[in-house]
Amino acid sequence: MLGLERKEPRMSAREKGRRQFLKKAVLAGLSAGAIGTSAGAQTAEPGNTAPDLKKLHAYGERSRFETAARSGTMGDMYPPGGMPAGTPRDFGLRTPLQDTVGFITPSPLHYVISHAHEPPDIDPHEHRLMIHGMVDRPVIFTVEDLKRLPSVSRPHFIECNANSSTAGPGGAARVAVEATVRETHGFTSCSIWTGVPLSLLLDRAGVQKGSTWIIAEGSEEGKHAKSIPLEKALDDVLVAYGQNGEAIRPEQGYPLRLVVPGWEGINNVKWLRRIKVVDQPYMGMMESTKYPSLRLDGKARWFQFELGPRSVITRPSGGQKLPAPGFYEISGLAWSGRGTIRKVEVSTDRGRTWKEAQIQGPAHSKSHTRFGMDWTWDGEETILQARCLDDQGEVQPTMADLAKIWGVQLDFFRSTSIVIGHFNAIQPWKVNRDGSVQNALFA
Amino acid sequence: MLGLERKEPRMSAREKGRRQFLKKAVLAGLSAGAIGTSAGAQTAEPGNTAPDLKKLHAYGERSRFETAARSGTMGDMYPPGGMPAGTPRDFGLRTPLQDTVGFITPSPLHYVISHAHEPPDIDPHEHRLMIHGMVDRPVIFTVEDLKRLPSVSRPHFIECNANSSTAGPGGAARVAVEATVRETHGFTSCSIWTGVPLSLLLDRAGVQKGSTWIIAEGSEEGKHAKSIPLEKALDDVLVAYGQNGEAIRPEQGYPLRLVVPGWEGINNVKWLRRIKVVDQPYMGMMESTKYPSLRLDGKARWFQFELGPRSVITRPSGGQKLPAPGFYEISGLAWSGRGTIRKVEVSTDRGRTWKEAQIQGPAHSKSHTRFGMDWTWDGEETILQARCLDDQGEVQPTMADLAKIWGVQLDFFRSTSIVIGHFNAIQPWKVNRDGSVQNALFA
Repeated sequence: MLGLERKEPRMSAREKGRRQFLKKAVLAGLSAGAIGTSAGAQTAEPGNTAPDLKKLHAYGERSRFETAARSGTMGDMYPPGGMPAGTPRDFGLRTPLQDTVGFITPSPLHYVISHAHEPPDIDPHEHRLMIHGMVDRPVIFTVEDLKRLPSVSRPHFIECNANSSTAGPGGAARVAVEATVRETHGFTSCSIWTGVPLSLLLDRAGVQKGSTWIIAEGSEEGKHAKSIPLEKALDDVLVAYGQNGEAIRPEQGYPLRLVVPGWEGINNVKWLRRIKVVDQPYMGMMESTKYPSLRLDGKARWFQFELGPRSVITRPSGGQKLPAPGFYEISGLAWSGRGTIRKVEVSTDRGRTWKEAQIQGPAHSKSHTRFGMDWTWDGEETILQARCLDDQGEVQPTMADLAKIWGVQLDFFRSTSIVIGHFNAIQPWKVNRDGSVQNALFA
Repeated sequence: MLGLERKEPRMSAREKGRRQFLKKAVLAGLSAGAIGTSAGAQTAEPGNTAPDLKKLHAYGERSRFETAARSGTMGDMYPPGGMPAGTPRDFGLRTPLQDTVGFITPSPLHYVISHAHEPPDIDPHEHRLMIHGMVDRPVIFTVEDLKRLPSVSRPHFIECNANSSTAGPGGAARVAVEATVRETHGFTSCSIWTGVPLSLLLDRAGVQKGSTWIIAEGSEEGKHAKSIPLEKALDDVLVAYGQNGEAIRPEQGYPLRLVVPGWEGINNVKWLRRIKVVDQPYMGMMESTKYPSLRLDGKARWFQFELGPRSVITRPSGGQKLPAPGFYEISGLAWSGRGTIRKVEVSTDRGRTWKEAQIQGPAHSKSHTRFGMDWTWDGEETILQARCLDDQGEVQPTMADLAKIWGVQLDFFRSTSIVIGHFNAIQPWKVNRDGSVQNALFA
């Protein structure tokens, strides 16, 4: 029973006692079935006899005047020529960050990257999660089994490591002056995830000595699999069934998703069906060929996981237009895969001076965090930008900082066709005298 | 300028300076217009040329296997015989609390009580909010004007003061043994609301000496109006345009809703179009004829506002069925209109002993708060119940406590046709030996 001896920084003595209790209790009675519903309890109440649920507002819709939408495709993420013929076309839909408020991304607008045609249409009653490999007791859970277990709800962002590397109208989004923040930063979204700590399930199975990794696998046609170190799996990873108060949406992994807080999106395996405990990583397709950062010297850095601190102003942002000089709230999002956002600073004068922004609402760990700053625009051309600091003391880098890390000239970022992972540079927006706002990363 | 001299417990010195700045800034430039969008920025990106947005997942939908739904009508809230002929039929749709996770209610499932047929279909570009009455500078805001102002995002529950007073299948929901938690408690929901502090708008208008109340009015056919003390209006009230990250849903007041944290739902005026500053309450229809608590001696208590501490177990709950003895997480919600939930206790043995539940996630003020407790069911008949304590030291009452306050016998609550406001009694659920769960408030 390796699980209990491992370093688990978040676990108090009370938690440990609880886990001991749970291990016994869960072993005792879980396979017996699910909480069901008595006959009639889910049927309509008197007065709701008509079948037109839309007319009855049984499940509400947004106003017809609201048009915020995900958009994009992802073929252009790959080198010119695209994927081999016959490969299902991936889809990559970006979140319109300029149209969201607060720190939660509405579930219908959560970004989607999927290396398959369509989300699988999974019947949750038929779905199973198997935990096996180097364990004492391989175990299979139904979704309802998982819902009987102790749950947690936590806000976490999920971000693709290639956010800002993909193309928009007129060229790579990070280069195009007309790019919106959906195009430059739309591969990050934030939900309140509800589920069972994976550590609990691994305890249930009994992780064996010598195991060091897990392989998480999805149910979709391509069976995406991802290697994750056991230490992370036992730390804050969730097997989630809930997103923003209801079931996870199909595009996000319905009915089960692995949520791996703060780590590259690719780790957050959707349509989760299998976790295998092993003693080495598996070098799956995504971790061996797509995600290592290829350097100019031909070497690649494998198994980068944590996403660094990042922020972006979402309003005003690219493609918007200020009607006239006057007062505006500058509003944006900050996040870090390493912890909690401690501070956001905003410059409205081309980076000459920086002023501390207000963090709006409690800042959660590994979560989008909304910030705001009061600003009066004098009508002159200027540049707006934000930078953040997380509670690990890490500061969001400039593009020049990133160029140093990569050992390249700034211009490399403008022209390369390499997928640039972890591109968390400060994003400048230029405000023109006519009030139009443009991407100024290369201005 | 009365606003700045008033007691404002939440305002720091920094906030005061900020407000001074804002008053000048906002006066200077707000009427000039809204942040717009340059041509093309909202159009589809390359690859998204087909008009079928559903196929493109531009705005996602839930799985076809998910069936959680609002349900109910509200004619039965009124005395036998219903409303006078010709009155538009109200609708009252309850949230299926048994199907939600975490502390946020998904917007499509937020409860609806509306004293009109359908939510008005408001074009946000045409909508205006007027602030007038005892002010120095009457002012009219567009929705986009408001979005330029400093914003906050906060989770708050909204609860109808008559929650648990309305009927379900087989009789009043609080009496029927087959009632689900949707039927007994479904007139409460919780969202993260985003908007402008009303205090800021009142400062902008310049509240005059001697004013003591505001009247908030909606745009719907019936023009619901509600009197609210100025002191509350200057405290934590929001003019909200956002709900859970996007625009407020039509059933909740699109495009603007007054959010009056912790107070009876009726104060949270939907489709907000007017705020008048006055020196006395207006005795509108709802506050004079529907909402005062009528007592047996013929007197009525008017202008109750704050909702007391309340909790309920949502899983297992009425209408559900436990498949067999064994381990279950008991999960539920607690909330108080007076502040933050400090403690929740759960009893699994008919109230003989109580054990502290875990509060899951940060407890927010005047917000639903999720709690959980580990439980192993031994297969015997028993009763489950929860009770909570808020940070004002107020404890959720038993039904016997409420009977004392009302000066009635317990049986009064079983048989009265009076609308009982503020019925926040502890809710017991009976677990039968066959695993079925029933409402046991009158068991």
